Amino acid sequence: MKVGLIGLGKMGANLGQNLLDHGHGVVAFDVNREAVAELESKGAAAAGSLAELISKLEPPRIAWIMVPHAFVDSVIEELAPLLSKGDIIIEAGNSHFNESIRRHGELAQQGIYFLDAGTSGGMEGARNGACYMVGGDEEAWAVTEPVFRDTAVPNGYLFAGKPGSGHFLKMVHNGIEYGMMAAIGEGFEVLDKSGFDYNFEQVARVWNNGSVIRSWLMELVERAFSKDARLDEIKGVMHSSGEGRWTLETAFDLQAATPVIAMALLMRYRSLETDTFTGKVVAALRNEFGGHAVETKE
Amino acid sequence: MKVGLIGLGKMGANLGQNLLDHGHGVVAFDVNREAVAELESKGAAAAGSLAELISKLEPPRIAWIMVPHAFVDSVIEELAPLLSKGDIIIEAGNSHFNESIRRHGELAQQGIYFLDAGTSGGMEGARNGACYMVGGDEEAWAVTEPVFRDTAVPNGYLFAGKPGSGHFLKMVHNGIEYGMMAAIGEGFEVLDKSGFDYNFEQVARVWNNGSVIRSWLMELVERAFSKDARLDEIKGVMHSSGEGRWTLETAFDLQAATPVIAMALLMRYRSLETDTFTGKVVAALRNEFGGHAVETKE
Repeated sequence: MKVGLIGLGKMGANLGQNLLDHGHGVVAFDVNREAVAELESKGAAAAGSLAELISKLEPPRIAWIMVPHAFVDSVIEELAPLLSKGDIIIEAGNSHFNESIRRHGELAQQGIYFLDAGTSGGMEGARNGACYMVGGDEEAWAVTEPVFRDTAVPNGYLFAGKPGSGHFLKMVHNGIEYGMMAAIGEGFEVLDKSGFDYNFEQVARVWNNGSVIRSWLMELVERAFSKDARLDEIKGVMHSSGEGRWTLETAFDLQAATPVIAMALLMRYRSLETDTFTGKVVAALRNEFGGHAVETKE
Repeated sequence: MKVGLIGLGKMGANLGQNLLDHGHGVVAFDVNREAVAELESKGAAAAGSLAELISKLEPPRIAWIMVPHAFVDSVIEELAPLLSKGDIIIEAGNSHFNESIRRHGELAQQGIYFLDAGTSGGMEGARNGACYMVGGDEEAWAVTEPVFRDTAVPNGYLFAGKPGSGHFLKMVHNGIEYGMMAAIGEGFEVLDKSGFDYNFEQVARVWNNGSVIRSWLMELVERAFSKDARLDEIKGVMHSSGEGRWTLETAFDLQAATPVIAMALLMRYRSLETDTFTGKVVAALRNEFGGHAVETKE
């Protein structure tokens, strides 16, 4: 099968190689010409524009978009007029599911099929076997399933049904991820403050072998401790890129009680600050009613 | 190696078979004579009392206690006078680490070695390969390591050092488990309330293959959904057996901020009640200040 791959960043470049490994044709485009040349050297056909990319595909054309979500609309806007009825757009970035539902509806008016494909597994997954959660047009799924199957790990792809259902699953996956990561972090926080002199790499390793909490995240923690035994080299600042927040906004809309995931997100926000206004207010109140000492700025 | 195994409940009976599988001798005792006869039929020597059990071991005797934590002290009280200097007690239940530190100190006065062995992996682990986190006397570890190694999964055992450090690790392991389980549960809560008609077994399966949140707990959820597609047969009542609470009590002592694990525990408590007094108070207050309707009891 031949795929037009739009976006050769960390995920797209690895996916491109993964596609080529499995005998699929790739026509590659990115604003970064070096990334295109790099994938061309691995066997892809290069395109200097979206128009050129589309011209090198045969109907039904498959355009796989793997760009940061802020650019998805502009890519589709340029792409759609180049496509014909029955062509397929796969949007495999981290878009909000409501955006995917909207895009599906807009493209359907032109007869263009749309699949929203949540992708997990990071760069390693994109390169060697990803995990896909896909929603959208069943007709398009019937055509493209081999591409997903070949670039996923075994059993690592699911057609979940309605438009948006793929990105919704990916969003909730990330919400769960926030909670799991926070639980792991807090566990090591307790170990670190304890009087026991644990070797954290060894702890993570034993927890990865036979314990109830064995998991890929624990394996990643083991790897991190193997490089920096007590993570002395990094700060505990926890950035986030949106899906955890979307999960909670969605939970609010659905009145779904998700306090653990909420707390995980709020503690990420807390970690961005070295001091808080909450803290100042509480310290001031303790001082006002009880004369308790406050710590003053230096 | 020959091990005196005290306690043939769900964990002990499976461990006994595991020991026998690996060529270790087992002298088995339990107040339940049927459990003793059952393990005897698999090749263990039976003991009708702790005294008989000890009489069938050679110095240094290894007594492996696997009983509910409420019975550990009474077992040790009866056992200790039967043992000699250099004998070894392994306490492999879910004891509080401070109890293990106390027991280690008391037994040390008699020259008896003590190992606190946190055990994870459930019944399947006890049967086919457990995960051990062990603290206590290094001399006793040097003697007993083969028993742990043979009954654990590869790399599934760790001698963590000081007395209590094994049960401390197991406690924190369970705290992490609470948080991870809650995050997984909340994720499916959002899916369940969403308008998408997901097949939860398929969702758990795709998440177990290549995703960031792949884990043994997700595999267990997949298995649960395979038996009961939407868990219609059970209630969402979440009992707990102590270690999550101990993790938090310890976190308070250490002033370690662990709000995600705390929330997971508090939501377990919430699940035990069909209505809450908190809810009544808040409903009454909304009525008092704003005239908002309250729901009255039927």
